[in-house]
Amino acid sequence: MNPTEAVPNTAIMALGPARVLSPLERKDPADGHWTSDEDRVVISVNPDDLMATIKDGETIPAFEMAGPRRKIYFDPSKLRCALVTCGGLCPGLNDIIRAIFLELYFNYGVKKINGIRYGLQGFIPRYGHDIMELTSESVSRILDMGGSILGSSRGPQPIEEIIDSLERMNIGILFMIGGDGTLMAATLIADAILARNLKIGVVCIPKTIDNDIYLVARSFGFDTAVDEATRAIRAAHNEAVGYPNGIGLIKLMGRHSGFIAATAALAKQEVNFVLVPEVDFDLEGEGGFLNSLEERVRDRGHAVVVVAEGAGQKFFAQDDRGRDPSGNIRLKDIGVYLKEKIADHFQALGVDATIKYIDPSYLIRSREANANDSVFCGNLGREAVHAGMAGKTRLLIGHWNNNFVHIPMAASAGKRKKIDPNGRLWRTVLDATGQGPLKNPGRV
Amino acid sequence: MNPTEAVPNTAIMALGPARVLSPLERKDPADGHWTSDEDRVVISVNPDDLMATIKDGETIPAFEMAGPRRKIYFDPSKLRCALVTCGGLCPGLNDIIRAIFLELYFNYGVKKINGIRYGLQGFIPRYGHDIMELTSESVSRILDMGGSILGSSRGPQPIEEIIDSLERMNIGILFMIGGDGTLMAATLIADAILARNLKIGVVCIPKTIDNDIYLVARSFGFDTAVDEATRAIRAAHNEAVGYPNGIGLIKLMGRHSGFIAATAALAKQEVNFVLVPEVDFDLEGEGGFLNSLEERVRDRGHAVVVVAEGAGQKFFAQDDRGRDPSGNIRLKDIGVYLKEKIADHFQALGVDATIKYIDPSYLIRSREANANDSVFCGNLGREAVHAGMAGKTRLLIGHWNNNFVHIPMAASAGKRKKIDPNGRLWRTVLDATGQGPLKNPGRV
Amino acid sequence: MNPTEAVPNTAIMALGPARVLSPLERKDPADGHWTSDEDRVVISVNPDDLMATIKDGETIPAFEMAGPRRKIYFDPSKLRCALVTCGGLCPGLNDIIRAIFLELYFNYGVKKINGIRYGLQGFIPRYGHDIMELTSESVSRILDMGGSILGSSRGPQPIEEIIDSLERMNIGILFMIGGDGTLMAATLIADAILARNLKIGVVCIPKTIDNDIYLVARSFGFDTAVDEATRAIRAAHNEAVGYPNGIGLIKLMGRHSGFIAATAALAKQEVNFVLVPEVDFDLEGEGGFLNSLEERVRDRGHAVVVVAEGAGQKFFAQDDRGRDPSGNIRLKDIGVYLKEKIADHFQALGVDATIKYIDPSYLIRSREANANDSVFCGNLGREAVHAGMAGKTRLLIGHWNNNFVHIPMAASAGKRKKIDPNGRLWRTVLDATGQGPLKNPGRV
Amino acid sequence: MNPTEAVPNTAIMALGPARVLSPLERKDPADGHWTSDEDRVVISVNPDDLMATIKDGETIPAFEMAGPRRKIYFDPSKLRCALVTCGGLCPGLNDIIRAIFLELYFNYGVKKINGIRYGLQGFIPRYGHDIMELTSESVSRILDMGGSILGSSRGPQPIEEIIDSLERMNIGILFMIGGDGTLMAATLIADAILARNLKIGVVCIPKTIDNDIYLVARSFGFDTAVDEATRAIRAAHNEAVGYPNGIGLIKLMGRHSGFIAATAALAKQEVNFVLVPEVDFDLEGEGGFLNSLEERVRDRGHAVVVVAEGAGQKFFAQDDRGRDPSGNIRLKDIGVYLKEKIADHFQALGVDATIKYIDPSYLIRSREANANDSVFCGNLGREAVHAGMAGKTRLLIGHWNNNFVHIPMAASAGKRKKIDPNGRLWRTVLDATGQGPLKNPGRV
Repeated sequence: MNPTEAVPNTAIMALGPARVLSPLERKDPADGHWTSDEDRVVISVNPDDLMATIKDGETIPAFEMAGPRRKIYFDPSKLRCALVTCGGLCPGLNDIIRAIFLELYFNYGVKKINGIRYGLQGFIPRYGHDIMELTSESVSRILDMGGSILGSSRGPQPIEEIIDSLERMNIGILFMIGGDGTLMAATLIADAILARNLKIGVVCIPKTIDNDIYLVARSFGFDTAVDEATRAIRAAHNEAVGYPNGIGLIKLMGRHSGFIAATAALAKQEVNFVLVPEVDFDLEGEGGFLNSLEERVRDRGHAVVVVAEGAGQKFFAQDDRGRDPSGNIRLKDIGVYLKEKIADHFQALGVDATIKYIDPSYLIRSREANANDSVFCGNLGREAVHAGMAGKTRLLIGHWNNNFVHIPMAASAGKRKKIDPNGRLWRTVLDATGQGPLKNPGRV
Repeated sequence: MNPTEAVPNTAIMALGPARVLSPLERKDPADGHWTSDEDRVVISVNPDDLMATIKDGETIPAFEMAGPRRKIYFDPSKLRCALVTCGGLCPGLNDIIRAIFLELYFNYGVKKINGIRYGLQGFIPRYGHDIMELTSESVSRILDMGGSILGSSRGPQPIEEIIDSLERMNIGILFMIGGDGTLMAATLIADAILARNLKIGVVCIPKTIDNDIYLVARSFGFDTAVDEATRAIRAAHNEAVGYPNGIGLIKLMGRHSGFIAATAALAKQEVNFVLVPEVDFDLEGEGGFLNSLEERVRDRGHAVVVVAEGAGQKFFAQDDRGRDPSGNIRLKDIGVYLKEKIADHFQALGVDATIKYIDPSYLIRSREANANDSVFCGNLGREAVHAGMAGKTRLLIGHWNNNFVHIPMAASAGKRKKIDPNGRLWRTVLDATGQGPLKNPGRV
Repeated sequence: MNPTEAVPNTAIMALGPARVLSPLERKDPADGHWTSDEDRVVISVNPDDLMATIKDGETIPAFEMAGPRRKIYFDPSKLRCALVTCGGLCPGLNDIIRAIFLELYFNYGVKKINGIRYGLQGFIPRYGHDIMELTSESVSRILDMGGSILGSSRGPQPIEEIIDSLERMNIGILFMIGGDGTLMAATLIADAILARNLKIGVVCIPKTIDNDIYLVARSFGFDTAVDEATRAIRAAHNEAVGYPNGIGLIKLMGRHSGFIAATAALAKQEVNFVLVPEVDFDLEGEGGFLNSLEERVRDRGHAVVVVAEGAGQKFFAQDDRGRDPSGNIRLKDIGVYLKEKIADHFQALGVDATIKYIDPSYLIRSREANANDSVFCGNLGREAVHAGMAGKTRLLIGHWNNNFVHIPMAASAGKRKKIDPNGRLWRTVLDATGQGPLKNPGRV
Repeated sequence: MNPTEAVPNTAIMALGPARVLSPLERKDPADGHWTSDEDRVVISVNPDDLMATIKDGETIPAFEMAGPRRKIYFDPSKLRCALVTCGGLCPGLNDIIRAIFLELYFNYGVKKINGIRYGLQGFIPRYGHDIMELTSESVSRILDMGGSILGSSRGPQPIEEIIDSLERMNIGILFMIGGDGTLMAATLIADAILARNLKIGVVCIPKTIDNDIYLVARSFGFDTAVDEATRAIRAAHNEAVGYPNGIGLIKLMGRHSGFIAATAALAKQEVNFVLVPEVDFDLEGEGGFLNSLEERVRDRGHAVVVVAEGAGQKFFAQDDRGRDPSGNIRLKDIGVYLKEKIADHFQALGVDATIKYIDPSYLIRSREANANDSVFCGNLGREAVHAGMAGKTRLLIGHWNNNFVHIPMAASAGKRKKIDPNGRLWRTVLDATGQGPLKNPGRV
């Protein structure tokens, strides 16, 4: 999972020199030690790489470490902050909202904290969404709820109107939680802020249930998604073994990267085939998926197939796919397509197969975070506040080699993390499923 | 939920006179009291009904009570029994299998117990399914698994071949667990057994996750289904409130009766509309569903709709619906249909609605039973064994006014329990959702 | 589970004649039919009992049926209601609070609804607890929370001060949710109201997680308690089979009645011994518990024991047990006692047994209701409102033969429902565990 | 979480030179790349540390990377392996057993795999435990079960008898899954094997639900434990807010390290005090726990306290604590002790506090692994097999900086990982609970 391309040690942008506030305003951390702007986390953990870099006289590629800074840029008593959640629901949004609020309110003493309703729409007056004034009460007991108490929406909004809105509300730090499109919007917003010479920080927490953000080892909600996905796998397995020639087919999230599908298959080893966007496969012909599936069903009487939503898009004509309001290409539904192809295949063989198709998408996205994601989201929220209060901007909070780090928006935007078809994860999936390179469908 | 039509006090069919086995062979129940063939449970609990019946000189309509009989018909040391599960999966199948096995094996001393694989197919040699020899080990720890360890299948099989198979295996009691179609098959099997003058008992445990068997107050798996369905409702609610004009649409099981949809809506009071087969509704026009939904969304910004799969079938042309292998009319997918209609409606209005559609069907059917259903299934299994050992046949085990009872197959087959649109359950649903007669969509 | 003693058909007390309000004030139920004060549910479902009663010229013992009445006593626009929850936590309290609120607010139009904080303490000024003004918002999303949003407390409070408080607040209907002690207090309150000639109705919803209220077939929270208790049984089983001579011991709730212990044991058939207050047992001697346990462990290598908290109190000297603030006799901890006795027994034998003790009490009591209990609690709340609005008082809402009924407080208070050691439930437990009359510890 | 002490790059011990088996015997990994014995993972991720080390001319401290080797030492067709699980139950044991079996059986072709029953006892003939012959069937569906299908036991057994047993059974690789004591035993076993000049590999997978193994960033079962612990916290919170001056007290696992307590508190931010072994605290006096708790309860009406079992051992006299059969010092029960101290404190104040104590220990330990731990355990099992097949011995499988690594037994045994009271984790706990240095009990 190491990046193939080193990211330079560039400083994160800051709004300006920060100052030390009086001790009354700024609580010392328990240990009396602040994180310094010079603290770093190496990107690669391969000693040979590191040696080589150093011998070449280069600095070691590393990320700036996240954490509370001794000096902060904003005066908490005067600061107003805003939070916005964009795009699809993802477990943990409320955890992050709560953590940002609590850190700002109790530890930095910022009392004016606004929730923007329904994503970027909330900035645009003509939608008529009210601004929420967040309070200690409004964020209590929200951890057990899925979704986002702020609401969300898809799609871009006019950048200049957003900036107008930020100015009108007198926002000092904008916390944006969202995916790819949101990172792009955040960059544009940060640029426009610069152009207008405003003192507004923009701090992003990358959201992708697919876990496919470049340079971000783990994104929140992913662990919960895998947890919940295993319920669907268990259901599919029960259905598959419950009938002669039973086939359970589950479509899981993963537009460009099959991490959820691959990881869930490792958690419940009843999966016999995993199909992901990163690994090409054919339906027909020897070694094709349908023949492999047929072989497995003939040998063992049943099979369980997990397909990531972005897999096999080559089977659809390119031209007729539009884009959703967030600008994502609309994917053809590979789940429904496979279900029909499988049915046709077995019908042609004269075999009475029973195919059960499960699409648990919204059951997963709308869940509350599990304990692991709750802890992770709490940390993301707190680190975002530390970064924002220190006057840093145009960055996102990442997690790398077990440390929270600052990543320049520019370094990550527009690139994706993908399963390496030659790497450990995929090899383990092949082992665990026994699917081979679609030639030798497995056991169990 | 009282039946509109009284069922006579007819004796349950028996294979012949039973005899008292020696005490060594037959353990006394703890209290030294056996259930008598004269024990009854009244059908109606309305005292006026009962008074009137008695005054007319009639006997009170009542069911024979289930329970262990002092005299049994079969000699446990020579008896071989068979179990078969038919039709769709339903939570609790494994609980029943286990209870039948344990009761036969430990309490009656029957050691030869066969599991028939994959429903009625298992009786037909050309399918080549092996017979399972059930053992104490093979039924341990199966309560935590969903599905059926025997497997199942849909569709009828030649009755005479089934009887041949029963004779060949030398079965004394056949336990059948299945739905409507299975009850019909069971009746035919019992008839054919009679015609051949065989001494084989047939005892059914009615299975319908929809809870729609006539004269059966509660069917196993229903409670678990409602439990699991509430997860989908919570997900739909989170998605609905998560977006401007968010609409969560859940399709739940219920081909002819909307009990799951109605009961789940009462459990999670975030549902605004419940559509069931028993209550007609229009889509268009004033007071139609779409306008009511539109009004609700306009007022409250979001809505949650639960539709039973059998609702609104009038919207589909009658002629093009086939039947599935069990002989059930194939229903058109009202969920997908509604989703499109809703999308069209809001698009025509120029309102940007977000519709999330959830179909949790297999996630529900394949679940293990919850504690309540486990207890219930354990009792059903044990009562089935008591009835079978006493030589009773052509009956099903029911539950009425809190007692387990024997119901003649003929009394229940081919009729269905339905929600009374003028009864308490539906009135409560209207209250709880506030949907009114689709004119006054609710609150929350 | 039928009562051994018939309850006469006495009318429920009412505050005075009710009147028909204008249609504008009172919505018709969906079916246009109201429940009449003459509607009844028979108590026994045994036709012979019924026949005999009728032949003796008696009326059939029956309960008044719950439901909305055509005539109501209070003018909703002027009415103020109060809710109070007393005693230990129980799953479903919030469901009932919410249902009472919604029914009053939306269906009867009562807008002034108070929550009394921390049980009866909330009526007594010196405790200084504020009164909660319940709103639509304050009851939303409380179903997913365990506990009670009103809080609770144990112990009696001066009746006259409570009445003073009701007068001062101008309460018309008081809804009390609580156990035994609360029913007693409710009776005293109702008496004192009568003595002062006040027009205040008192409607109780009986709460007992133990399910031991006389004449109440099922009490809310019990189903959830059994559900949660099975988690402890599974844990105990895993621990027991995990070690040589492993013994898992679980203490479950049940001060006077072992319904939770018995029912949970039926749900998870890994239990080998169930000890309840209703069935006497010895520890020592042949056929005593310890020898039976020893035999079971010797035969099978492990054992799981469930003990209800009220079992085996005879082992403790009577004199040194005080009472808790609710007036309940303090039970000695039979769980800890048994654990030590078992340890001593095996140590004396020279057998290295591993005993794992689990007391899940608060994990169970504090849980949110499961779907089944949520539906049940919603109905209890609505029926309580119907009864209260009709001017009925001194009653509790019960559930009998699948109908909600009105039970005069006097008929139920001070008596308890218990497991019949000669009845079906206990016989089934003996069958399922194989524990016999503590002589023949079971299988699995 | 970086170690303060560097571990040298010492090679892991091996049984002898490995050889390349024929391609028929050894499947290529999907990518055609094997892990090399030279692959390494750096220990520190701090670039300054790394730079400094290199400038000093040292090699960078790093671990040998785990993974499949091209050359293997054993001939799969002749090899017999054994698995044993020791010590307390921990979520994931069955996942590891299954993964080791499947990897050996299907990917290496080893067909003779034995399960040793009940820990080290299983090697000792006088206990009379049978050896299990593991089969594909015996490991199917065990993932949903907690505990260990092999069983476990505590305490040491004579090393020479264990070796005799290994020789008698003709074991080639012994996989040991256990905690501290097991690591010590494993080292002794490996030494004795060497002394006898036997060709038996010993590969350990460290087990500690407390997550306190030195040089092991994460141990299996920990994530599940935290997940399950949050249920207890939620229960305690519901009980605490349910009564006037309500206090919920939860004891969690953590003999020497409070990772579970600290992490669970971060997952559910309703905890107000976390007490762990690593951070000293007083009960009495200003800034002592009892006064801080009193202050919190006075301010907010309730409090939730989490205490790790090893916290506050200084309150007990040192002399009277024995050791359990595994040699662990018996801890005094800090939970029960605190409960009494809190009760006394509030009684002395004349405040009527309600204290609810929850000890969920066995409910946590006996759980099945969650998805995250299942994936992790699957990997641990597979890596153990790769190491063992390559002829490596005297090592444990660890996880460091997101890679699986080989750790020499000697490097880890006898040391513990602990919470750094000045580090990020504890600082975050102080922030999240608001407990301060026990002077300023928190909010919510």
